[in-house]
Amino acid sequence: MKVARPIARVIEALQSLPGIGPRSAERLAYHLWRLPEDQVQQIADDIKGLKTMTVSCRECYNISESELCWICEDTGRNPSLVMVVEEPLDVSAMERTGKFDGLYHVLGGVLDPIRGIGPDELRTYELMDRIQLRLEKGSESIEIVLATNPSTEGETTAIYLRKMIVERFPGQPIKVTRIARGLPVGSDLEYADPMTLSRSLEGRIEY
Amino acid sequence: MKVARPIARVIEALQSLPGIGPRSAERLAYHLWRLPEDQVQQIADDIKGLKTMTVSCRECYNISESELCWICEDTGRNPSLVMVVEEPLDVSAMERTGKFDGLYHVLGGVLDPIRGIGPDELRTYELMDRIQLRLEKGSESIEIVLATNPSTEGETTAIYLRKMIVERFPGQPIKVTRIARGLPVGSDLEYADPMTLSRSLEGRIEY
Repeated sequence: MKVARPIARVIEALQSLPGIGPRSAERLAYHLWRLPEDQVQQIADDIKGLKTMTVSCRECYNISESELCWICEDTGRNPSLVMVVEEPLDVSAMERTGKFDGLYHVLGGVLDPIRGIGPDELRTYELMDRIQLRLEKGSESIEIVLATNPSTEGETTAIYLRKMIVERFPGQPIKVTRIARGLPVGSDLEYADPMTLSRSLEGRIEY
Repeated sequence: MKVARPIARVIEALQSLPGIGPRSAERLAYHLWRLPEDQVQQIADDIKGLKTMTVSCRECYNISESELCWICEDTGRNPSLVMVVEEPLDVSAMERTGKFDGLYHVLGGVLDPIRGIGPDELRTYELMDRIQLRLEKGSESIEIVLATNPSTEGETTAIYLRKMIVERFPGQPIKVTRIARGLPVGSDLEYADPMTLSRSLEGRIEY
């Protein structure tokens, strides 16, 4: 199929993004083409800005505009409560709940030996350093909430991290927790998969 | 919710596009952020190129890199068969069938009085000029295929154009046709809406 090359290039670029099929890529490309030039220019600049105007927070590795992200900079947050997540996107998701007042630690992925991703490829040692520093600063107790995804890799990573922390800091006042796995709110028992159901049974709380 | 502004800007930009909700916009923004810088740069440049590297074909108003688009330039196509479509996207869709060897005329939209879109806002007069030119060049017969969408506005526009052509060129060898409306291939009578069913009955052909 022949279309003008500038259009074809954008269709191809959009199609390479997750969740955008060939048809939506086409529709989006033509939509963009119809927009006023300054608006298209702005979108292109914004996309470029993603790389040129952001850094990883030097504490938690979340996306940031400055050395320290706005969460790590916030003195109102509890530095002895650290939630370990896979990606910056997970920070956003958790922040939306408004229920977490600790800090984060963005791993940058999960352990995945098949793809060659071991502890060195993630920010695991950086997490240990942060815990060490907190202990040196005299924290009475530290809680590390493991909030990797409830996928095979996420669970493996959580288990690995727990083991690492326990071995690295024996006898220290560190509590390692894992976010609850169970039935999503608004869902139906009838349609839940057996794994989720088992988890919701294992994780049952007194009522 | 606070996220780094470069991310927020891209989320907002993506969200303004059709078919991209807040969640996919977020996911896409973070995906883009994770890509290598040169790739992100390339995507941004491609998007910019949509406006800076394209023009409207001076004949049919399709998106083109040169004054005449590749279809209008193709001498193998029948210049006495012109399909009127709403948007360049429709040209791509029709070209995919490989069944049309005429030329196109991209209206640039449909009549929509509520939004202030009348015949002056579309390329209606440009269509009349093209027909006029074809007649002057001595075409034995011209067919204009009205291929606006089978929506209320598309139908209204098709009716309007037919009337305009008939009134403007009385007694001339011009055939005005409309693409068939009916049941989509692979669909189910049972699930078809009454309008589509009526159209498929009205448009029935000898078998």
